[in-house]
Amino acid sequence: MRVAVLAGGVGAARFLTGLLRVVDAADVTAIINVADDERLHGLWISPDIDTVTYTCAGAIDPGRGWGLSDESWRAMDELRRLAEAGGRADLAWFNLGDRDLGTHLYRTTRLAEGGRLSEISAEIAHAWGLEMTMLPVSDDRIATRVATEDGELSFQEYFVREQHAVAATDVWFDGAPAAKPAPGVIDALEQADVIVVAPSNPVVSIGPVLAVPHVRDAVVGRRDAVVGVSPIVGGKALKGPADRLLHELGHEASVAGVARMYSGLMATLVVDTVDEPHVGAVESEGVRCVVTPTVMNDPEIAASLAQTCLDAAGAGR
Amino acid sequence: MRVAVLAGGVGAARFLTGLLRVVDAADVTAIINVADDERLHGLWISPDIDTVTYTCAGAIDPGRGWGLSDESWRAMDELRRLAEAGGRADLAWFNLGDRDLGTHLYRTTRLAEGGRLSEISAEIAHAWGLEMTMLPVSDDRIATRVATEDGELSFQEYFVREQHAVAATDVWFDGAPAAKPAPGVIDALEQADVIVVAPSNPVVSIGPVLAVPHVRDAVVGRRDAVVGVSPIVGGKALKGPADRLLHELGHEASVAGVARMYSGLMATLVVDTVDEPHVGAVESEGVRCVVTPTVMNDPEIAASLAQTCLDAAGAGR
Repeated sequence: MRVAVLAGGVGAARFLTGLLRVVDAADVTAIINVADDERLHGLWISPDIDTVTYTCAGAIDPGRGWGLSDESWRAMDELRRLAEAGGRADLAWFNLGDRDLGTHLYRTTRLAEGGRLSEISAEIAHAWGLEMTMLPVSDDRIATRVATEDGELSFQEYFVREQHAVAATDVWFDGAPAAKPAPGVIDALEQADVIVVAPSNPVVSIGPVLAVPHVRDAVVGRRDAVVGVSPIVGGKALKGPADRLLHELGHEASVAGVARMYSGLMATLVVDTVDEPHVGAVESEGVRCVVTPTVMNDPEIAASLAQTCLDAAGAGR
Repeated sequence: MRVAVLAGGVGAARFLTGLLRVVDAADVTAIINVADDERLHGLWISPDIDTVTYTCAGAIDPGRGWGLSDESWRAMDELRRLAEAGGRADLAWFNLGDRDLGTHLYRTTRLAEGGRLSEISAEIAHAWGLEMTMLPVSDDRIATRVATEDGELSFQEYFVREQHAVAATDVWFDGAPAAKPAPGVIDALEQADVIVVAPSNPVVSIGPVLAVPHVRDAVVGRRDAVVGVSPIVGGKALKGPADRLLHELGHEASVAGVARMYSGLMATLVVDTVDEPHVGAVESEGVRCVVTPTVMNDPEIAASLAQTCLDAAGAGR
């Protein structure tokens, strides 16, 4: 059973670890958001790709949820020392671990010599022993921009530097209209038995994936085989600013609001047991609703959730 | 007594530590080679500036002679692991320590926001508590190019990657003819009571400093106040490829050869005691010769050498 997963960062990565327990890795393709990539200190940083890679490799730091375990911070400490000595503490807002820097050095060098992000991501995944296919949604540059009352921010500036504590008035994806899907993306969507929209932020993680021309159409064309997992549980995001962002941008931070956003492209939405009272509201959006534990505190729950998604897609056809 | 020092890497850095023991730091200006700078993995690396900074701050690794003491290599280990997994071990030829990376991250970021290399070098020197003036010879890009039988190399490719084991057929400095001296360079040369040409490689360290328009003229105009320290001791370079390079490029790897290269711009050359037999050969090039221990195995010798240079310049006028 071939499975394609539209993926953002932490939530998607945990879902994938579960999926890899119930499906052969060779049959899994993760199609990953790249619009929160950032060039910082000269380095090319791809946070969602790295989170998926490190998590599926069992190398993610479980406490932080991002970056590598057994990490050290000596480069960062030195950068911060130099920045602070010059009154420029503002230069050291994005934490880069020493081991993690190795990834960024490799990626930046390969990009500079003309490598495509999809090739490079595959090389890094291979080095970690991963057997699933990891595809950035595009090899072209797509950049999430967040409009706030204080001006326009990149996604990492919004998310990390400002700790998503500023109100967003608009979000858009620079470069998306001209971007091409990375090689393999459309094929994976067309050939998948099941397409899962992972429990990632619908606006800033799944939004840019769908904004790449042909991707949304490919997903819509497979609507009966598409299953989403709601990133909103009991009206809240488990992590990050999804609930606030949905509110601020005129959506409803609820499973019904998620169903409304996604109803054109999926037949089934999986929601957490705490949202059982809202099954009717979800289904009134034209989306079948499946209830199961979705808070992936351990790999068993993630595996069970993945199996539920596969079963739901089978039932939906 | 104001002293300006034309500087390359290790030899110049050791000389400067000696000089700072005998002259007020506020009266010392180091004018440093930047033609072996390299953009690598997206980072801007200035090896000679860093060697001078770290050495004068007492933070250099004494064993290696470059990079920081108490260093770790976790980023590099990870880069190498990724590179080797993809059959690209060739990407990991330049060792970057974790702490050292902090310097490169800071410099690259400041350059990207429009900072001049001279400002940034001063900021880093300040963070290390250095009170001497550190000036890259130019804020413009100058790149040493080394022609070999196998093609053209950057200096770091020649020096580090190839371990200077290939024969050089030519050396030139891309960008030098159009470069401007960094602010303060010409003033420092004009106002110095003594100008020291440090014991650095005449071709690839001092050569590019003198290749910046107006710098050679400023030095030549002060010829009586200029004292050089021979980087060749007993016909050999203490470190690096100076002896071979001199040979390959048609110079003589001896104190007399150094005197011949420098006779137009200095009145005095300081040579090591092992070269006492060659005083006549040096002086026949029109350069006064002073003999003293120049192998700076400890700071006392470096301080004594620096004092000898200052005395020699006084005697030369």
